[in-house]
Amino acid sequence: MNRNYSVILGNLGNTKDRFCGGYKDNPPTLQMLERAASILDVTGIELVGTWDIRPDNVAEMKSALLGHGLQCVSIIPDLFADKIFGNGSFSSADAGVREYALEYSRQMCDIARELGCDLINVWPGQDGYDYLLTADYDTQRGWLAQGLGTLAAEYTDLRFALEYKPKEPRCFSYIARMADTLLLCGEIGLKNVGVCIDTGHSYVAGESVGEAIVLAKRAGNKLFHMHFNDNHGSWDDDMIVGTVHSTTYLETLYWLDRTGYAGWLSMDQYPYREDAAGAIGESVQWLRAYEEIVDTNRAEIDGLLQSGQAVETSRFLRKVLMGNR
Amino acid sequence: MNRNYSVILGNLGNTKDRFCGGYKDNPPTLQMLERAASILDVTGIELVGTWDIRPDNVAEMKSALLGHGLQCVSIIPDLFADKIFGNGSFSSADAGVREYALEYSRQMCDIARELGCDLINVWPGQDGYDYLLTADYDTQRGWLAQGLGTLAAEYTDLRFALEYKPKEPRCFSYIARMADTLLLCGEIGLKNVGVCIDTGHSYVAGESVGEAIVLAKRAGNKLFHMHFNDNHGSWDDDMIVGTVHSTTYLETLYWLDRTGYAGWLSMDQYPYREDAAGAIGESVQWLRAYEEIVDTNRAEIDGLLQSGQAVETSRFLRKVLMGNR
Amino acid sequence: MNRNYSVILGNLGNTKDRFCGGYKDNPPTLQMLERAASILDVTGIELVGTWDIRPDNVAEMKSALLGHGLQCVSIIPDLFADKIFGNGSFSSADAGVREYALEYSRQMCDIARELGCDLINVWPGQDGYDYLLTADYDTQRGWLAQGLGTLAAEYTDLRFALEYKPKEPRCFSYIARMADTLLLCGEIGLKNVGVCIDTGHSYVAGESVGEAIVLAKRAGNKLFHMHFNDNHGSWDDDMIVGTVHSTTYLETLYWLDRTGYAGWLSMDQYPYREDAAGAIGESVQWLRAYEEIVDTNRAEIDGLLQSGQAVETSRFLRKVLMGNR
Amino acid sequence: MNRNYSVILGNLGNTKDRFCGGYKDNPPTLQMLERAASILDVTGIELVGTWDIRPDNVAEMKSALLGHGLQCVSIIPDLFADKIFGNGSFSSADAGVREYALEYSRQMCDIARELGCDLINVWPGQDGYDYLLTADYDTQRGWLAQGLGTLAAEYTDLRFALEYKPKEPRCFSYIARMADTLLLCGEIGLKNVGVCIDTGHSYVAGESVGEAIVLAKRAGNKLFHMHFNDNHGSWDDDMIVGTVHSTTYLETLYWLDRTGYAGWLSMDQYPYREDAAGAIGESVQWLRAYEEIVDTNRAEIDGLLQSGQAVETSRFLRKVLMGNR
Repeated sequence: MNRNYSVILGNLGNTKDRFCGGYKDNPPTLQMLERAASILDVTGIELVGTWDIRPDNVAEMKSALLGHGLQCVSIIPDLFADKIFGNGSFSSADAGVREYALEYSRQMCDIARELGCDLINVWPGQDGYDYLLTADYDTQRGWLAQGLGTLAAEYTDLRFALEYKPKEPRCFSYIARMADTLLLCGEIGLKNVGVCIDTGHSYVAGESVGEAIVLAKRAGNKLFHMHFNDNHGSWDDDMIVGTVHSTTYLETLYWLDRTGYAGWLSMDQYPYREDAAGAIGESVQWLRAYEEIVDTNRAEIDGLLQSGQAVETSRFLRKVLMGNR
Repeated sequence: MNRNYSVILGNLGNTKDRFCGGYKDNPPTLQMLERAASILDVTGIELVGTWDIRPDNVAEMKSALLGHGLQCVSIIPDLFADKIFGNGSFSSADAGVREYALEYSRQMCDIARELGCDLINVWPGQDGYDYLLTADYDTQRGWLAQGLGTLAAEYTDLRFALEYKPKEPRCFSYIARMADTLLLCGEIGLKNVGVCIDTGHSYVAGESVGEAIVLAKRAGNKLFHMHFNDNHGSWDDDMIVGTVHSTTYLETLYWLDRTGYAGWLSMDQYPYREDAAGAIGESVQWLRAYEEIVDTNRAEIDGLLQSGQAVETSRFLRKVLMGNR
Repeated sequence: MNRNYSVILGNLGNTKDRFCGGYKDNPPTLQMLERAASILDVTGIELVGTWDIRPDNVAEMKSALLGHGLQCVSIIPDLFADKIFGNGSFSSADAGVREYALEYSRQMCDIARELGCDLINVWPGQDGYDYLLTADYDTQRGWLAQGLGTLAAEYTDLRFALEYKPKEPRCFSYIARMADTLLLCGEIGLKNVGVCIDTGHSYVAGESVGEAIVLAKRAGNKLFHMHFNDNHGSWDDDMIVGTVHSTTYLETLYWLDRTGYAGWLSMDQYPYREDAAGAIGESVQWLRAYEEIVDTNRAEIDGLLQSGQAVETSRFLRKVLMGNR
Repeated sequence: MNRNYSVILGNLGNTKDRFCGGYKDNPPTLQMLERAASILDVTGIELVGTWDIRPDNVAEMKSALLGHGLQCVSIIPDLFADKIFGNGSFSSADAGVREYALEYSRQMCDIARELGCDLINVWPGQDGYDYLLTADYDTQRGWLAQGLGTLAAEYTDLRFALEYKPKEPRCFSYIARMADTLLLCGEIGLKNVGVCIDTGHSYVAGESVGEAIVLAKRAGNKLFHMHFNDNHGSWDDDMIVGTVHSTTYLETLYWLDRTGYAGWLSMDQYPYREDAAGAIGESVQWLRAYEEIVDTNRAEIDGLLQSGQAVETSRFLRKVLMGNR
């Protein structure tokens, strides 16, 4: 299988949390791009709106991407860091904010076109709620579907991948798991609206990623994009792929192939205290190693899924992960 | 609002776990029924197939229910305790088991008709998987949809409520959360197939129950049944309503009303070491107290949902829960 | 019982998370103090080192506190937001950082003395690890005990409350739960080193707060301080007390009394999107309502703990929380 | 390093859960022993009191063990499945039950002596509570310490390993995590009372096993025994080692060696639907493979722990787990 790897540009920059305002230095955008380009096997970049890309720097960015031989894989509108969206974007109870979310996203879609990028990765992280009895779920879900639907209907040449996450920054997100995101896609009812899986979000959601991929397939080939990272299971720790879990990556790659996924494998990490290029590069090489296992053992994996015997699966895993030991 | 309370008969009996084979004595079925009838405000009973109800005791049960003035609210086919379903029922990789699941369920549907009960509560607890790389999610989901669809198409006078639960007894259940259950309902595509929410399952799933109710509404009035209990958040502890959480029950009852839910409020507990009738009766009275709050403060709650101010919601909760303090 | 309420000053200020740099305006320190003073029943303030209090503003702060009739309840050295502690403070692998942690903490102890405050609340949030196989737990725990012990031995007129938290900002904290913090206190072996419970940290840790209080008592009256907030169980959401949980606060207050706790009840919240004074004030009033229940029903609660019957406990809770309903 | 593997005999038998009374056939004890003996590299057996070993079958068991060349590694008194302990054993509010727990445990200690076994593995699974405000934590912890202390003082030739677990069958266990178990050991104050780590219990507790081992070391060489299995992180799934996690086993084995652990590596699984001998044998071979990695890379691991660089640790893991890929 031929696979393409990308990275979200901001992962190369500074990192902060709610306590510490920055663990590292904040390199200029073009320097981050240079670092991204230096990571082995990475050929694509995702750009966060406003942070990385704005109307005023599109031309410069286009030229820089070309210079590094990098493709713009997606634009991620900033619906989560701008204070104006602090109580939601497309689902905000404030009609003015909803309108602005739409207007701002249109701007990002226009930029995507200019960069020859056909994917908008939508993560409406602020759309949700913290306290029970403070939100009208029905009305707000309606607004969310309406806003996203309006946008997608205007840009039929672009695809919109909705990235789900169960919580953070809100205690409950409206777009929380694969299945509810597919229901939302169904409400919207447009061919160019689908889903982005972030593996870490999926772990926190209690899903198994392989099954989430199957759900998207059964709902009509709705998997548009993939973000990769690892975590300890209860929070979006955004760690290096493979440092906590192993089997799940094999299963994920198997099901991506089996369902005909042809999109990018993009790294989405938060290397708070690590060398960013090093941490991202590690994830790519873990995935390449897992891929080789899947590519060379596909028939055997097919058989394991049919026989359903955990002991055999364990034996297979020991063989491929532990070699001659 | 007029509301109707019921209980699952087996909750009145013995309880066991994987270590201890039984914490209490095991009363005969008719004695359990007598105890259930004695619980204040309970007027309905759910019967588990095979355990409580079989072709050989339908007449006797019908007469006993009549004698106690109890209505049969649902039949719950035993798809989870019979060893034959140990690796799944409708989604089993074994075609013979799938056929048996269908045949056995038909038998339960026939019994429901005889008892004048129009609801089958389907909890396929064994349909899922424990280890990654041991199940063909795509094929098995197909079987699940096909089997349930076949059954529901044959009994169009009955309604089928699919009860979801994220895990236990399997590490991952195929019917895990509201949204994926709605997707399954969508695949099946029959009016008489909907969902049962068990509040405790929903907590473990990371949902808020109020939002799950809204999802079911938006998918076309798919909420058919409600099971109530409480837990500590990470496992299906099946405890007395209101002993851990509070706000969520207010929100749940609010949304049940707002979405026009007209079904039963059924208690589903596992009083391992408690007096069963006492523990179940407590849950009913907690719910009645919460209902009174909702019924007498509906307009104020409407307003809280519109304003979205957590401080106001907190003030309201203190008022209604803490009285004059 | 006479109880005293306080608040951490920074809770009145701006809030941010790793995505959004600030949800609200950032008022000047003295304005935050004014807001804190306006909260009903609050008479004490906790100050975070460097942010709120430094050698250069001690006199001004002392005068401002006096002016508002507020007592300085604790100083919280900033061992978690300063970039220099990004890889740990007292347990840092860098000897220079360890030395600086000590030196900086001495400065905060001197300030405490000047303010007539006898409590240092130590939250070493960066002391922990993210990835397995990247830390020498044994050596680092030794450094942590040594550094804290050195400090406490120099300031025997002050008490040091170690605040535990299982994770965030690190994936694993060295001071994670009540019991391991007590083991650390035991290693240090000084009378003036004890523990601070943050109720939300305790929920995330899987503890019940009442039992944690008992552990501290049995280890020799080691509970020095209390931080209050609420959350949804899996993360430190830092919400208004009582908006998610209820019973646990009754139990907590009961055990505080029974173990003779005479310290402050301090609010520690993160009102990301809420009016801060309003949100904190709500928590205080929830606690006061819970206290009244405990104070007027102490003998009955004693009895419930002895009889160990969940049904009776539920009946009691309905009575005190639901009033005449 | 020379390591010794054992298995809990009951793992070879039938498995059940709270729904299904048995997934497999229930072989006679001696047949289970035969199966255990057949597992590659297993040379020791743990016996559960009453189930596997009673005064009436000691002689027979001794001879059978001898015949198979198996050593009795520990006796596990049944304090968790006997209905009499349904509300606790050593901490029961019923003085008669506490006395019986002691008397029964003495019987098990006598049997251990007869079998030449010097380890009692104590898992007081029923000692805990389900509902808040139903237990007197202080008094009950006192009873627990007293009962265990009395027993251990009478059998100074035996060692007592207290096995902790955060929940199940109770919602909260008194012996929940490494640190609180060490506090209890401290209260008891006897050299022959220590701790057993079950890796799966530790994951559910939110610990990292390596750090738990270090805590036991620092408390005075208190790690007496090790149980191995794997799980998905939120529940004691009792799965085959290595099928979910990987790095943690490397770290665990590293710290066992570094702290001088000389005890057994015992498999404690619940192969609900699997061939038991196959599933247990897999765990042993996973551990042997991990051990080889630790044994041949010890100096490099030492270095990783000192440098604390996650990228280097990841690179190391890829090398040892992924070979030449």
